Amino acid sequence: MGEFDLIERYFKRPPLSADVGIGDDCAVWTPRSGHQLAFSADMLVEGRHFLSTVNPHHLGHKSLAVNLSDLAACGATPQAFMLSLSLPRADEAWLAGFSSGLFQLADQHRCELIGGDTTQGPLNISITVMGDIPTGQSILRSGAQVGDDLYVSGHLGDARLALEAFRGNVSLPQHVFELARLRMERPTPRVALGQALRGIATAMADISDGLIGDLGHILKASHVGAEIDTTFAPALMQTHPFWTCPPDLAMTCALSGGDDYELVFSASPSASANVQRAAKESGTSITRIGRITDSRRLELLGMDGLPVAISLNSFDHFA
Amino acid sequence: MGEFDLIERYFKRPPLSADVGIGDDCAVWTPRSGHQLAFSADMLVEGRHFLSTVNPHHLGHKSLAVNLSDLAACGATPQAFMLSLSLPRADEAWLAGFSSGLFQLADQHRCELIGGDTTQGPLNISITVMGDIPTGQSILRSGAQVGDDLYVSGHLGDARLALEAFRGNVSLPQHVFELARLRMERPTPRVALGQALRGIATAMADISDGLIGDLGHILKASHVGAEIDTTFAPALMQTHPFWTCPPDLAMTCALSGGDDYELVFSASPSASANVQRAAKESGTSITRIGRITDSRRLELLGMDGLPVAISLNSFDHFA
Repeated sequence: MGEFDLIERYFKRPPLSADVGIGDDCAVWTPRSGHQLAFSADMLVEGRHFLSTVNPHHLGHKSLAVNLSDLAACGATPQAFMLSLSLPRADEAWLAGFSSGLFQLADQHRCELIGGDTTQGPLNISITVMGDIPTGQSILRSGAQVGDDLYVSGHLGDARLALEAFRGNVSLPQHVFELARLRMERPTPRVALGQALRGIATAMADISDGLIGDLGHILKASHVGAEIDTTFAPALMQTHPFWTCPPDLAMTCALSGGDDYELVFSASPSASANVQRAAKESGTSITRIGRITDSRRLELLGMDGLPVAISLNSFDHFA
Repeated sequence: MGEFDLIERYFKRPPLSADVGIGDDCAVWTPRSGHQLAFSADMLVEGRHFLSTVNPHHLGHKSLAVNLSDLAACGATPQAFMLSLSLPRADEAWLAGFSSGLFQLADQHRCELIGGDTTQGPLNISITVMGDIPTGQSILRSGAQVGDDLYVSGHLGDARLALEAFRGNVSLPQHVFELARLRMERPTPRVALGQALRGIATAMADISDGLIGDLGHILKASHVGAEIDTTFAPALMQTHPFWTCPPDLAMTCALSGGDDYELVFSASPSASANVQRAAKESGTSITRIGRITDSRRLELLGMDGLPVAISLNSFDHFA
C-alpha cells in the first residue's frame, strides 16, 4: 500500500464544511464572520505519551481528545483539524483502528479532518486543531480575579493511577485498573462545558500536566494566588468508589497527576448559579476546590483548613 | 533547561497579528473578512527528510519553506504557523540554529509562529501553516484546461543531484556539490509567484515529489493529459552552467527528482503575457515546458518531438 492509497483508504472522506479538503496542496476553509479562530497543537510520541501496546482505536481517540481539550479550555467550538503522522510501516490493522477511533470522536464534535501529512519514521502523531469563538469571548488564562471561586470539572487522578500501575508502583484490582486505564487512554474533552462557560468563567485552562501545574499557569498569567482545599482530592478520582487509594498516592494522583483533560476555571461568586447551570446543561460534573487570593502563591489547605506541605511537581518533558 | 524555558528562550516572541500568541491553551487569531483560509502541514523526520549532520539553521529554514511552498501552490498569502517539535534532548546550540533559520524565513514572509508543542522523542518537526486568499481566488489542481500551456518556476533537479552525491552514486566537483546541497537544504518557496498567478494560472501544484509525480496530480484532478518537451530538463538544473551532468542522470533529477519546491502550473495561451508579467514582478524565472492535452496521459517528447520512453517514478513514502 502506497502513501496515497493509505490516505485514500483510511483518512480521506467527503468534505463537510471545508471548501477544499484532503487532496490538494492546501485545504481551503471559509471562516464564520463575527468569529475569531482558536488554534492548538499536540504531538504524541510512542514510549513517551503512549505505550506500543495501546489499542490503536483508543490512541486515535486520545490524539484528537487532547487537542479538543485545549479548544474547550478557551471556550472554542471545534471546526477542523490537520493530522501529520509518522509511521514505521503501513500496518492496515493499526490504521483501521486508529482512524476509526479518531473519526468517532471527530464526528461527535463535527470536527473535520481537512489535511495533513504522512511519512515513514518512528511513530509520531501530530495534530493541529482549529475552532472558532464569537469575537471577544475566548476564555484566557489571564482573567482570574481575586475572590473568584475555583472549580474543576469531572474527575482527577485516574490516568496517573493507571500509569503508576503500569510502572508496577501500585497493584490494583482488575476492575479498578481497567477503569483507570480507560480514563488514561480515552479521556473526555470537556468541549460542551468550555463553550457553556463563555461569559461566565473569568479564566480557564485544561489539566494536562496536573492540576497544580496547570492552575499555576492561570495564577501566573493572572498575577494572583489561590488556596485550594486538598480534602476534595481523593474523592475526585473516578476509581474512588470502587477502591480505597492510599492517601499519599491519591493526593499525588489528583493534584499533580497529569493526563486528566479536565478543566480548571475561575468564576465570580456572583456567577455561581450560572456556573452550576453551565455544568448541568453540558452534562458535566464540577467541584468547587478553592478560591483566588491576592497572595501570588498557591496554598494547599488540609482537613483542618490549615496549610499542608505537599511536594508536588507538574510534568515537564525536559526537566 | 525545562520545556517552558525552552519555548520562552527560543520560540516565544511578542505577538504580531495574533490576538493571543504562544502561552495560553490556544492561540487566538482574527481572520480578514472577504478571505478564505488555506491550510497545509508537513512533517520532517530525521533520516528520512534530512540527515543528522544537517546544519540546524538550514533545517529551520527548510521546515517552514516546504510548508510555505504549499501555500504558494494555492496562491495564498502566508499568515501564521504552528510548530510541533519532538527532540531527543534540549540541545541549545541546535535550538539556537534551528530557531534562527526558522524565524529568518518566517519574518521574510511575515508569517507568525502562534503556537505548537514540544516533547521529548526522536527528532521530528511538524508544522501546520495557514495563509489566506481573497474568496474564490485559490488556485487548485483541478482547473487545467485542454490547450493550456504548462510552466515550471525556477530550477529543477539540483536537490536530487545532491542526494545522489550523498548516496555516493555520483561524484561532483566541490563547488557543484555545495550549490546542489544548498538547493536541497535551503529551498526557496515561490510565495510571491504563487500570489501573482491568482486569476492567471488555471491549475497549480508545488513540486515536492518530482515534476512527473506532481504534474500527475494536476492531470488526474483536472481529468486531462499533457505533453512535455523533455529537452528542457538538463538546462533547468541550477548546477548546469558549472558542470555537465550525465544525460540520464539529468533527466532523472529534473523530471522526477523531488525536493525542488518549485511550482508547476497551467495557463491559457491567451494569458501568456500575464504569466510573464507575474514572473517578472515576483522576480522568479519560469520556463514553458509543454501543454495540456485531452489524452488523459502524460507524454514525454524528446529532441525530435517524438515520444521518449523514460522510466521514472515519483517519491512515495510507503512504496
